[in-house]
Amino acid sequence: MISEADLSQRIIERLNSLTKPVGSLGRLEELALRIGLIQGTEQPVCERKAMYVFCADHGVTAQGVSAYPQEVTKQMVLNFLRGGAAINVLCRHEGITPVIVDCGVRGEPVAGIRNCRLGEGTRDFTQEPAMSRLQAEQCLSYGRKLAEEAAGSYDIVGTGEMGIGNTTAAAAILAVFSGADAEQCVGPGAGLDSAGVRRKAEVVRQALQLHRPKPEDPVGVLAAVGGFEIGIMSGFILAAARLRLPVVIDGFICGAAALLASRLSPDGLSTSIFAHRSAEPGHDLMLELVGARPLLDLRMRLGEGTGAALGIHIIEAAVRLYREMATFASAGVSTHLPPTTASTSKLPPESAR
Amino acid sequence: MISEADLSQRIIERLNSLTKPVGSLGRLEELALRIGLIQGTEQPVCERKAMYVFCADHGVTAQGVSAYPQEVTKQMVLNFLRGGAAINVLCRHEGITPVIVDCGVRGEPVAGIRNCRLGEGTRDFTQEPAMSRLQAEQCLSYGRKLAEEAAGSYDIVGTGEMGIGNTTAAAAILAVFSGADAEQCVGPGAGLDSAGVRRKAEVVRQALQLHRPKPEDPVGVLAAVGGFEIGIMSGFILAAARLRLPVVIDGFICGAAALLASRLSPDGLSTSIFAHRSAEPGHDLMLELVGARPLLDLRMRLGEGTGAALGIHIIEAAVRLYREMATFASAGVSTHLPPTTASTSKLPPESAR
Repeated sequence: MISEADLSQRIIERLNSLTKPVGSLGRLEELALRIGLIQGTEQPVCERKAMYVFCADHGVTAQGVSAYPQEVTKQMVLNFLRGGAAINVLCRHEGITPVIVDCGVRGEPVAGIRNCRLGEGTRDFTQEPAMSRLQAEQCLSYGRKLAEEAAGSYDIVGTGEMGIGNTTAAAAILAVFSGADAEQCVGPGAGLDSAGVRRKAEVVRQALQLHRPKPEDPVGVLAAVGGFEIGIMSGFILAAARLRLPVVIDGFICGAAALLASRLSPDGLSTSIFAHRSAEPGHDLMLELVGARPLLDLRMRLGEGTGAALGIHIIEAAVRLYREMATFASAGVSTHLPPTTASTSKLPPESAR
Repeated sequence: MISEADLSQRIIERLNSLTKPVGSLGRLEELALRIGLIQGTEQPVCERKAMYVFCADHGVTAQGVSAYPQEVTKQMVLNFLRGGAAINVLCRHEGITPVIVDCGVRGEPVAGIRNCRLGEGTRDFTQEPAMSRLQAEQCLSYGRKLAEEAAGSYDIVGTGEMGIGNTTAAAAILAVFSGADAEQCVGPGAGLDSAGVRRKAEVVRQALQLHRPKPEDPVGVLAAVGGFEIGIMSGFILAAARLRLPVVIDGFICGAAALLASRLSPDGLSTSIFAHRSAEPGHDLMLELVGARPLLDLRMRLGEGTGAALGIHIIEAAVRLYREMATFASAGVSTHLPPTTASTSKLPPESAR
């Protein structure tokens, strides 16, 4: 088997043989190299693409932390299944298969959805833990199972989510792992006004005082202030890392799941690529904590995987350029004039996740 | 006919009726509005897409301003026609029709290319004007003709270019209109080392001292230090503005053409959208001069229209979201809780070009 260093060298040599100035495709070259190293091949491929949209309800909505009523979670699930939501349009645009996962949406289960239900939403974590420790562990196990299936069917996957109240859970997770004040972790989510955002910060503060979750116990953090979709995503991201499946992370809530994954295993994000910088204020701090430099910054804050879908498209472009471009030799194009330059033939180290 | 203010209001109302929090698609919502206003319709469309790649040679290559020999221009034109270049791969990826335009490539004309030749490359502008004033005017006229044809066949177009030496011409144009030192306007282009970049700055300085081009005479600037592909692009961009055809501008060289267009007419960029921030150092200053905030920043510096192709894809995504998403009413999704929010129903003013 070829070593990672040798594989890296071969991929860079091919990148530098393509009819373009060395390094001139910028981050697209880094992405082609990254996908090759993740997939462990000189011939990476991103043709079979899926978007996993993890959906669940949140008991903390009882505290008035969202601009939308709780029933919107299920209504949006139905919208996903009918193809009318933003993520459906983007999946059609990018040739991505949407996979809608019910992680615990309130009410009767819906036909045609992937069932990973852990209950009818979490409990109100200002009053009691969001879920039991057993449920938190089941989340990770469901996520692992989904990733194992995905690895058999797809070259690259994205994560998205839907769950009224889930920016509050994500903010609480961020507060635990960053140690930052609740105010730095919360934001308007789906559209709170400033009084609502202050209330949300108070809710997070109250929950942390009640449970005192320890950052060194990520499963305990998930149980105390997490969400079913966040937990299942964490398990999914972790297993994708082990399975060498590239996984493209959407915005703030998916970022919280990734942050959890990074605390569950030091290699938990080894196949994660962060798609975009969300307009949700706490996202910058979150990206800093996981050392990520996202691909896009379009001031999006919708969730569902919308940023990840655009990110997958950019990554697929990078891989196609790597695979399909002519080389200087095959196209009969003169190479760089030797005496004019001292430009290196090596790519900068991959710093993008 | 509906007024622009009324059309804007209607488009924003539809955007706000879609199943997503108001404004949560960020710049994608601005783009959908912008394309609707440019096309003058509540039903904008971005299905028929073309990339115009303007190619020409530059006499200033005699001064050693490029890391590649001049014959690479023609070799790359042949690569474009065979489908092996980066822009070919991206056009296939985005469903964009490439249109290769010979604006003045050295040597015999090539079969299968759009012929707008103004000569076999410009003259060395460190010794004499790059072209005559008549040729500069012919550039604008060729560009206008191409845009008129494009407006009949496409919903949206991009601009790209190929021409060994053309970052030097673009830097000289930037220096004239910005008044900045040559050092601030030049960069490595296709791969100069630092000595090469210093030499390039000296070449630009020398040319400006020789011709003393006046910013208030943009045609004179084009004649003195421009390029055939840059001039034809300027005419193309200007005419696209008049024809209400959205035109997506690639990087540094296309940006110089856009800068020229903005000085030829105050409405010259009214349908231009800047795709990406190039890694070429002078691009930031150029974007500032035209007041543009590009969509992408992927450290690309290849040209050919590669950034514009990715930009077109993002714009098409925005328009499809606007057209295809379900509304709250049609999907039976509950809207925003009225008492929780004071969020405005208006989009921020469009500041993106």
